[in-house]
Amino acid sequence: MQFHLNGFEPGDPEIANPAQRYPASGAQGALPADVDVLIVGCGPAGLTLASQLAAFPDIKTAIAEQKPGPLLRGQADGIACRTVEMFEAFGFSEKVLKEACWINETTFWKPDDRQRENIVRSGRIQDVEDGLSEFPHVVLNQARVHDFYLDVMRKSPAAIEPYYARRLVDLDTRNSSDPFEHRVTARLEHLQEGQYPTIETVKARFVVGCDGARSAVRRSIGRNLHGDSANHAWGVMDVLAVTDFPDVRMKSLIQSAKDGSIIIIPREGGYLFRIYVEMDKLAEHERVSDRKITADDVIAAAQRVFHPYMLDVKEVAWWSVYEIGQRLCDKFDDVDEGDGKLPSVFIAGDACHTHSPKAGQGMNVSMQDGFNLGWKLATVLRKRAAPQLLKTYSAERQAVAKELIDFDREWAQVISSSKGADPAETQRYFVQHGRYTAGTATRYRPALLTGEPTHQHLAKGLTIGMRFHSAPVIRVGDAMRIELGHTVKADGRWRLFAFAPKGDVGQAGGRLDALCDFLERDAASPVRKYTPAGADIDTVFDVRAILQQGHREVAINAAPPLLLPAKGKFGLRDYEKVFAPDLKGGNDIFDMRGIDRDAGALVIVRPDQYIAHVLPLDAFAEISAYFAGFMMAAA
Amino acid sequence: MQFHLNGFEPGDPEIANPAQRYPASGAQGALPADVDVLIVGCGPAGLTLASQLAAFPDIKTAIAEQKPGPLLRGQADGIACRTVEMFEAFGFSEKVLKEACWINETTFWKPDDRQRENIVRSGRIQDVEDGLSEFPHVVLNQARVHDFYLDVMRKSPAAIEPYYARRLVDLDTRNSSDPFEHRVTARLEHLQEGQYPTIETVKARFVVGCDGARSAVRRSIGRNLHGDSANHAWGVMDVLAVTDFPDVRMKSLIQSAKDGSIIIIPREGGYLFRIYVEMDKLAEHERVSDRKITADDVIAAAQRVFHPYMLDVKEVAWWSVYEIGQRLCDKFDDVDEGDGKLPSVFIAGDACHTHSPKAGQGMNVSMQDGFNLGWKLATVLRKRAAPQLLKTYSAERQAVAKELIDFDREWAQVISSSKGADPAETQRYFVQHGRYTAGTATRYRPALLTGEPTHQHLAKGLTIGMRFHSAPVIRVGDAMRIELGHTVKADGRWRLFAFAPKGDVGQAGGRLDALCDFLERDAASPVRKYTPAGADIDTVFDVRAILQQGHREVAINAAPPLLLPAKGKFGLRDYEKVFAPDLKGGNDIFDMRGIDRDAGALVIVRPDQYIAHVLPLDAFAEISAYFAGFMMAAA
Repeated sequence: MQFHLNGFEPGDPEIANPAQRYPASGAQGALPADVDVLIVGCGPAGLTLASQLAAFPDIKTAIAEQKPGPLLRGQADGIACRTVEMFEAFGFSEKVLKEACWINETTFWKPDDRQRENIVRSGRIQDVEDGLSEFPHVVLNQARVHDFYLDVMRKSPAAIEPYYARRLVDLDTRNSSDPFEHRVTARLEHLQEGQYPTIETVKARFVVGCDGARSAVRRSIGRNLHGDSANHAWGVMDVLAVTDFPDVRMKSLIQSAKDGSIIIIPREGGYLFRIYVEMDKLAEHERVSDRKITADDVIAAAQRVFHPYMLDVKEVAWWSVYEIGQRLCDKFDDVDEGDGKLPSVFIAGDACHTHSPKAGQGMNVSMQDGFNLGWKLATVLRKRAAPQLLKTYSAERQAVAKELIDFDREWAQVISSSKGADPAETQRYFVQHGRYTAGTATRYRPALLTGEPTHQHLAKGLTIGMRFHSAPVIRVGDAMRIELGHTVKADGRWRLFAFAPKGDVGQAGGRLDALCDFLERDAASPVRKYTPAGADIDTVFDVRAILQQGHREVAINAAPPLLLPAKGKFGLRDYEKVFAPDLKGGNDIFDMRGIDRDAGALVIVRPDQYIAHVLPLDAFAEISAYFAGFMMAAA
Repeated sequence: MQFHLNGFEPGDPEIANPAQRYPASGAQGALPADVDVLIVGCGPAGLTLASQLAAFPDIKTAIAEQKPGPLLRGQADGIACRTVEMFEAFGFSEKVLKEACWINETTFWKPDDRQRENIVRSGRIQDVEDGLSEFPHVVLNQARVHDFYLDVMRKSPAAIEPYYARRLVDLDTRNSSDPFEHRVTARLEHLQEGQYPTIETVKARFVVGCDGARSAVRRSIGRNLHGDSANHAWGVMDVLAVTDFPDVRMKSLIQSAKDGSIIIIPREGGYLFRIYVEMDKLAEHERVSDRKITADDVIAAAQRVFHPYMLDVKEVAWWSVYEIGQRLCDKFDDVDEGDGKLPSVFIAGDACHTHSPKAGQGMNVSMQDGFNLGWKLATVLRKRAAPQLLKTYSAERQAVAKELIDFDREWAQVISSSKGADPAETQRYFVQHGRYTAGTATRYRPALLTGEPTHQHLAKGLTIGMRFHSAPVIRVGDAMRIELGHTVKADGRWRLFAFAPKGDVGQAGGRLDALCDFLERDAASPVRKYTPAGADIDTVFDVRAILQQGHREVAINAAPPLLLPAKGKFGLRDYEKVFAPDLKGGNDIFDMRGIDRDAGALVIVRPDQYIAHVLPLDAFAEISAYFAGFMMAAA
């Protein structure tokens, strides 16, 4: 898709009339007096969380945003492979893949040894290593990501629309032993043009602050961002420009001899691109705003680095200057370590971690915050898990944010000329951290939700604590080639992937059949214990089997009943639970993910796509024990 | 995607609330008094045509439909590979691929030799041969295809909404030597509940009847469908049912010993499927309606064939009975062969060809009718081509419809038990005609628009007169892997694909550079002659080059200016004109499509994706002559 040729236009580029490019967004009327969850802030974290909660019609969610309407020109733009995997779970990956700019290769430029004032290309690499994810690294205006989430929210069972023009005034949290009480009272100002602001009061069971670096929610729970600033100013601008620099449609890291560094990020639509430009070193205690840097200053700085190439900027769609800094909150909820209380207020995204934008990580980590918290809130509110589950949010995500801060500090130094430009070192570091920047390196440590690696050898390529790494399979019922990971939708359900031992097609007496029989019938089975009476058998646990045979060698009707379940009011059969390797395509998931062919493996996947556990197929006691750690029997 | 579990629900399955699943559709107010094109009928042909015309804001189109609103439950469901290629040109292939049921394999069933009353599987094949198209064969409710077209129309520059509840009363065509006069006057009844119908009069330059087998437009121009009926009744129903027949999620052709044939077509959402059921032989002159066949009769007939498998129908979403028949109109416009007049009324789709639905061809051929006519009407109305161009519509599409009728008659006999069920013959015939049913066998004969095969050897796999068979390539500017065919959008433009000779990267003195120089500067160049003054250089002709080198060996800035054109008000460079083979992926387009590596080739592709000509890169005179045959110099 090509667009923005005659100037940047916000909204859906497929709509010809610019005036109709963004659908109406926003709830009418006053905020509800009480809700289950109040989300403050319509950024990436808040919208991911709201989209997740919107899947549950029995949960009452309100999301409030200080701005008067949806974002039209975003700041963030980097979308890591891992994030597209999450978008697939929310059902809009194909929209992002169509509209975004794909980052296929990254190039590195350095001063020309023969003529130091010129730059020359020093390296060119594939941006994402083969096989790291079934999705690419892409770049798209943050505002469009918002639009896709707003669309999901609107279409979901709970049909959520944001309340715009609401500024949080304060939060008041009451102590209570009942975690389901409406413990938090929020007061918000409704800002309407030409009117005095009115105050609305909302009582909530849980409040989540997704309200950015200056988070009012964070302030209200007495938490602070800790960290420092590197006293180094950078400019960033999205431009429509003419240049003879050949790699303007690639991600390019350019280090000049004496004029600093720039980074080129090609953007959606084929014409727009972003430039990060290293500006001046700041004095101690000096703020970047003191420098009065203009857009022309940023362009001039970029032009100096670009030499001998010309850069003729025709339109600046958006620009800003910022100073590098990494700041982090030590806890992402309102209870302290060791405190017996249950959290009722959480913070996510920039409200608890801020850093420089150049590694393209911020929006991605923030959205994963929201995804992590969403299913936990839903599970607790629906009384399927004990409220302690909520404590895992801060524990898991604070550690991830800490890694991000550390990475960002190092990366900022590598690409800053002040540390001595070394393009070879930049390229080496970039390649070395490719998995990290793709978002696929996150690994939760063993804890309530993350099993010990006792049986990790049964599935060496599906690491406990890391995201489920998808691979292609053939669905036996209809010979459809799909990505197995795409069965993990953002619907709050758990997936139990049973990889069958060699020769096992679910026949009586086999291990797969025994597992299915246990799950379907045994009183100790989590499926029996935690699935509400009368609900479809896969309402809470979605059990799927992967066999080793070619798909034509499997008789679908011979599968254990749990794998061909009767569902819905008619008892229709679900034919999408049994899979075979993609042998014709040369993609055998058993080889690709290191599954033990003799023993098979049970891989338990959380609702947010992370691997909770790897167990033997017959480890019935361990399966029961794992879920008994936090789940509650269905009422 | 899984849906329809608890009953068939029309509309967008991604919207949770059934009441909101279809957006408002339909124009407000009265039909305009005059239009360029009046389309009668909102079926697949009419909507394809309207979607094509909607791309041009300077063309005034109205589309009228007798029904009071958009279709909710469609009849047709088969979508051939070729049709998905066209959907890609209209920008919605990804929506269809996501929501449709993919037909991956087809199975064949016959009477069990040991127990003739039972059926057994006799064969199982891949539905579409490898490499035939980059898209699969899919199945989706026709109503959803309509929805996607309505969305394209709504978002396009001309923003077209249908006028519903309009019944064509009559057409009056005036003779005139000026083809741009409003020669046709249409009278339509506006049917509104509880009111007497009112008459609206529309004057049109062109009228297109897409109004089905009982076309009022066809009648008004005095044309008739000719053909016969096979006096054989079939039932068709979309059901939600429980069965132990193992191939219910595959396309299955079942021939029983004495109870006739059925065809199973799995449908979107994972539960619904369609059954075609052979019913009784009719007496001569007997109509199927005389038999008073009920849904229960159809189910009972299907159950007899299914033996020993059970079929427990829970819900019938839609059903019908029909008699096999093939009928065809001998001309698809209002002028007779040899008549010097120019057509002003056309017919398309079922209005000019009807046949049995089981081969899944009807909707596909109808949409191709609309695609064929659309760009021709637009080109003539925009005065870029002489009005004679319009005569090629009937010439090209009537021949295609004739082939369809012949195929359908043969296929109907093959699968009818009355001719003696022979499953081996059925499977053989099915495989043999795979390219035909995929829609990729259409081939226009040499004529005004279709060149002689003099230079066909330069691109053996890109056959003149057939659709441009896509292959993967790497876009040099951003190292993006794309399908080359996907650059052919439904925007009315011509594509000139210049496949470069070995070693040619567009350097001065090379053949590619010479071609670009001719096209850009020579007074005889079609680009010079037919591109309006002041318009971007690729407004009418989109020239793209495919080189033989790996993409990293090409310096994009060294490309001839025509391949790195400055466009739009800012003169921004378009980096999407130069391609390299996908060497890493092992897909070298030069090998895949039999391009002469020494000579290269110029492949001219029409706005509807058909190959107009294959010429040597230096055949400047032939290039000029081809376009001079029908194009008109820009005003």
